[in-house]
Amino acid sequence: MTVHNDALRDRACLIVHGPDHPGIVAAVSALVSRQKGNIVALDQYSDDADGGAFFQRVVFHRPGLAAAMPEIKADLAETVGGLGLEWALSDQSVPKRMAILASTSDHCVLELLWRHRRGELNVSIPMVISNHTKIAEDVRSFGIPFFHVPSQGPDKSEAEARIIELLAGNVDVVVLARYMQILSEDFLDRVAVPVINIHHSFLPAFIGAAPYRKAHERGVKMIGATSHYVTKDLDEGPIIEQDIARVDHSMSAADLQVRGAYVERAVLSRAVQWHTEDRVIRHGNHTIVFA
Amino acid sequence: MTVHNDALRDRACLIVHGPDHPGIVAAVSALVSRQKGNIVALDQYSDDADGGAFFQRVVFHRPGLAAAMPEIKADLAETVGGLGLEWALSDQSVPKRMAILASTSDHCVLELLWRHRRGELNVSIPMVISNHTKIAEDVRSFGIPFFHVPSQGPDKSEAEARIIELLAGNVDVVVLARYMQILSEDFLDRVAVPVINIHHSFLPAFIGAAPYRKAHERGVKMIGATSHYVTKDLDEGPIIEQDIARVDHSMSAADLQVRGAYVERAVLSRAVQWHTEDRVIRHGNHTIVFA
Amino acid sequence: MTVHNDALRDRACLIVHGPDHPGIVAAVSALVSRQKGNIVALDQYSDDADGGAFFQRVVFHRPGLAAAMPEIKADLAETVGGLGLEWALSDQSVPKRMAILASTSDHCVLELLWRHRRGELNVSIPMVISNHTKIAEDVRSFGIPFFHVPSQGPDKSEAEARIIELLAGNVDVVVLARYMQILSEDFLDRVAVPVINIHHSFLPAFIGAAPYRKAHERGVKMIGATSHYVTKDLDEGPIIEQDIARVDHSMSAADLQVRGAYVERAVLSRAVQWHTEDRVIRHGNHTIVFA
Amino acid sequence: MTVHNDALRDRACLIVHGPDHPGIVAAVSALVSRQKGNIVALDQYSDDADGGAFFQRVVFHRPGLAAAMPEIKADLAETVGGLGLEWALSDQSVPKRMAILASTSDHCVLELLWRHRRGELNVSIPMVISNHTKIAEDVRSFGIPFFHVPSQGPDKSEAEARIIELLAGNVDVVVLARYMQILSEDFLDRVAVPVINIHHSFLPAFIGAAPYRKAHERGVKMIGATSHYVTKDLDEGPIIEQDIARVDHSMSAADLQVRGAYVERAVLSRAVQWHTEDRVIRHGNHTIVFA
Repeated sequence: MTVHNDALRDRACLIVHGPDHPGIVAAVSALVSRQKGNIVALDQYSDDADGGAFFQRVVFHRPGLAAAMPEIKADLAETVGGLGLEWALSDQSVPKRMAILASTSDHCVLELLWRHRRGELNVSIPMVISNHTKIAEDVRSFGIPFFHVPSQGPDKSEAEARIIELLAGNVDVVVLARYMQILSEDFLDRVAVPVINIHHSFLPAFIGAAPYRKAHERGVKMIGATSHYVTKDLDEGPIIEQDIARVDHSMSAADLQVRGAYVERAVLSRAVQWHTEDRVIRHGNHTIVFA
Repeated sequence: MTVHNDALRDRACLIVHGPDHPGIVAAVSALVSRQKGNIVALDQYSDDADGGAFFQRVVFHRPGLAAAMPEIKADLAETVGGLGLEWALSDQSVPKRMAILASTSDHCVLELLWRHRRGELNVSIPMVISNHTKIAEDVRSFGIPFFHVPSQGPDKSEAEARIIELLAGNVDVVVLARYMQILSEDFLDRVAVPVINIHHSFLPAFIGAAPYRKAHERGVKMIGATSHYVTKDLDEGPIIEQDIARVDHSMSAADLQVRGAYVERAVLSRAVQWHTEDRVIRHGNHTIVFA
Repeated sequence: MTVHNDALRDRACLIVHGPDHPGIVAAVSALVSRQKGNIVALDQYSDDADGGAFFQRVVFHRPGLAAAMPEIKADLAETVGGLGLEWALSDQSVPKRMAILASTSDHCVLELLWRHRRGELNVSIPMVISNHTKIAEDVRSFGIPFFHVPSQGPDKSEAEARIIELLAGNVDVVVLARYMQILSEDFLDRVAVPVINIHHSFLPAFIGAAPYRKAHERGVKMIGATSHYVTKDLDEGPIIEQDIARVDHSMSAADLQVRGAYVERAVLSRAVQWHTEDRVIRHGNHTIVFA
Repeated sequence: MTVHNDALRDRACLIVHGPDHPGIVAAVSALVSRQKGNIVALDQYSDDADGGAFFQRVVFHRPGLAAAMPEIKADLAETVGGLGLEWALSDQSVPKRMAILASTSDHCVLELLWRHRRGELNVSIPMVISNHTKIAEDVRSFGIPFFHVPSQGPDKSEAEARIIELLAGNVDVVVLARYMQILSEDFLDRVAVPVINIHHSFLPAFIGAAPYRKAHERGVKMIGATSHYVTKDLDEGPIIEQDIARVDHSMSAADLQVRGAYVERAVLSRAVQWHTEDRVIRHGNHTIVFA
């Protein structure tokens, strides 16, 4: 049975993107009109400089949306597909299913669970997976299932296989909430849904491990955090959101880590919210964010 | 002779607002298509909660725009006017004519002149008017005419009449860049163009005179600045932009004023830029800002 | 038995303030030296403009501090007291005892409990008191006692008396973490420890009830939160910390409240941390914050 | 004849740093007392973690300071030097002499000249040197001498020699205000005063040339600027100050450059102000900033 968010009943989100040419907005809005939808929000961006890519997000209200989805999709395939554009239509009353992977740090995972409980994230959370057990009790106190998948030794394939078993068919997005394991390219292929990570630096500064130590050594006056889609190239995926906090000479690397945790949880939460509301479009190694 | 900004040749900005109902976006984008325009940017907002007002900003490219303006306007009057909506169409290659009123402080007026010289503000500046002469030389070094209109004594009507003479027919917007005189309701009626002010506080905190002194007395930990449209009610007009800076116990009221000047010039510059790019729509005592 | 924070063993914090005159820093640092202390951190501020008040915070390490406290205090009374100055000496290894009062909102109280659990707040938390039961389970999951003191009807004196009973002798500071009851002047007299509040606006804007609704009506572009010491004058006490978040025209009053919650919990947490580390000195209706 | 800043008459700034041990603060403040000084501001920092370095900045008022300087210095040499510490004493009424090197961009150099004219920078500016002539007129409108030293061809030694001739004996600090030439190690040795640079990225991200282009390619959501002391290792010197601005997908590399200019001028101005007020202490590749 699908979970429904009644506050968003009959609300659809349409993403359209592809090569820009005149009349796309008109064609899309005519389609929404003829499908009895009323546009609630519309964002549009044309990337002239980089060769003319077009991006649009339309939210519309359509009474009886669930029943009408096949017909609307057929119209989109013909009209928008016929213009050589890609499109995706989602029913916003059906929350995305989001799995969270974490290790021992609780600040990111608890922030997501807490925002979810407050009704601020339009997701369901079928599971939290960790390679440690430290956060199990906290996770379960939110009524969320917790699974322990240890990742011992250099060969991660067994742990990854176990995680894939848990995720397969059950999730629409995976969030790495300070999950301290590098996922293999094979894992990313098999999981087949977007994977969002939080990196504890202002990428591309301090790529890789121990960014707070490196930041301390360099003597920076600000630290940052970056949420990005995970690709096979470590810390190189499309950036969704970044933010920073001021630091000073009196702070040790450990102090930077304490301060940074607050940036990390805020940045990851915003990235997750935007992704799950279909506000983020990937384009090459960039993102268009209609925040 | 009209000044033209060639980089924006054939680029139109259309603002539409009024009571929301289904199909407005479709009608507007169909109109743009049939008028041979290609949409470059589109922002839309529906204010459901407050009774359903609709706001849209569309920028489109239309070869031969200047010659086609009458025809496009006729179509708008029929199509958009026929839907009970208000609209305004502007040719972005024709910069708005902006007068600046100032007193003795130079930070806001010089910042505007400097940004204009860098090509960051799409305006022409036919004049700067001041009730003092202190900034005359600086203003003229930017090649901008300076007029001195003293405002002695309690009766401001003579000075206001002189300013109206200078402005009449010559400007599309008036900016008060720390102009330390209160303009009468009669002046606002007669000037008949939008007037933008910068107030040196985070309104509605510290309304009226001497906000930095009041902020110091209250012991706030942040100071702010607010740019707003001027209405007959002092410091009560629709807010366009605000920002703040951190301060601390060691700062005197004079220190707050020094620090605040940097917030004022930044806030006013953003508000002026947004207004002159038709990104701000007034709605009651609020603004919709498509920044 | 007193709880101890071993990481801060033998670390003292001395606050000195009063009328400024030459030689105070020298006298205080000579005293620390002769009392076998080594200065770890020193902040000093002289408020010349306002009549010459002097403020100093000195943290020093002194082996065997607990046993030496009486002797150091005697020296302070003679030396610093003799200069007409007020002083306070605390052993930082003895965490302040902090009670939290809350109502139904959980964001501020859970943030404080969570930071405490992470070891980021040098406090013990003997109790959380609420006039509702909604947060009881969450509070107790942190191992913190929860007491329910309802506040029905117009007469709050019974509820206040019950709260005083719970607090008396048990706490060094009281934090109002979105406690939606106005405390009487009599309560403040009897509780006899500092009381810290979080107000959900950028004071002095939107004093009193429903600040997010008022902010929405005024059309501000930023919302804020203010943490201050509670005095008998509502929302007028000395400000400890403030911060803001950007908002825009698309946000309802309810949206402002959601966004504002993140500012509130951050501002209150910083204010609590600074107070409990003896970084805040009250001076009239101002605070000196050695952050 | 030395320029004097009368507002700071009789005000001295003493910097002390070196290996930490008990009693330094007491020794220094006793020295100030016995030299008839009254401490106005004091900042102190002990870097326990990194092996115990001690840093102190003391500002004190001493009637007749100019005449007493030799005696105070003798006392410092004996007392503070005797403790194995380094020290520097400056008379704050004698502004540092600051040369500015620039190329064609005016935003940083004009900001410094303008702040200087407003009395916000305690410096004298004997000259601006540029390898272009574009900013000559603007510079001279502030009453500041402008020298043109072209830097043609691969061999910069002639231009550097000419710049050294101009600077030698005339300046206490050199500021690179978007000076687009890399200075040789030999130049840095010969100039023999601190050289402050502004780099147009959030270092260490986007080291080297064209950081805005690189930032655009990486798709970051924030751009930054970094002011640092120049060392022989390009973009690797001790960081004094950094700041950022939010950007989004719609901005081209050129847009980032426009936005970034405002961050650059603010960051450089703060770094210059702190340096010229003796608030920055270099320690290895770090800075201690008593802001």
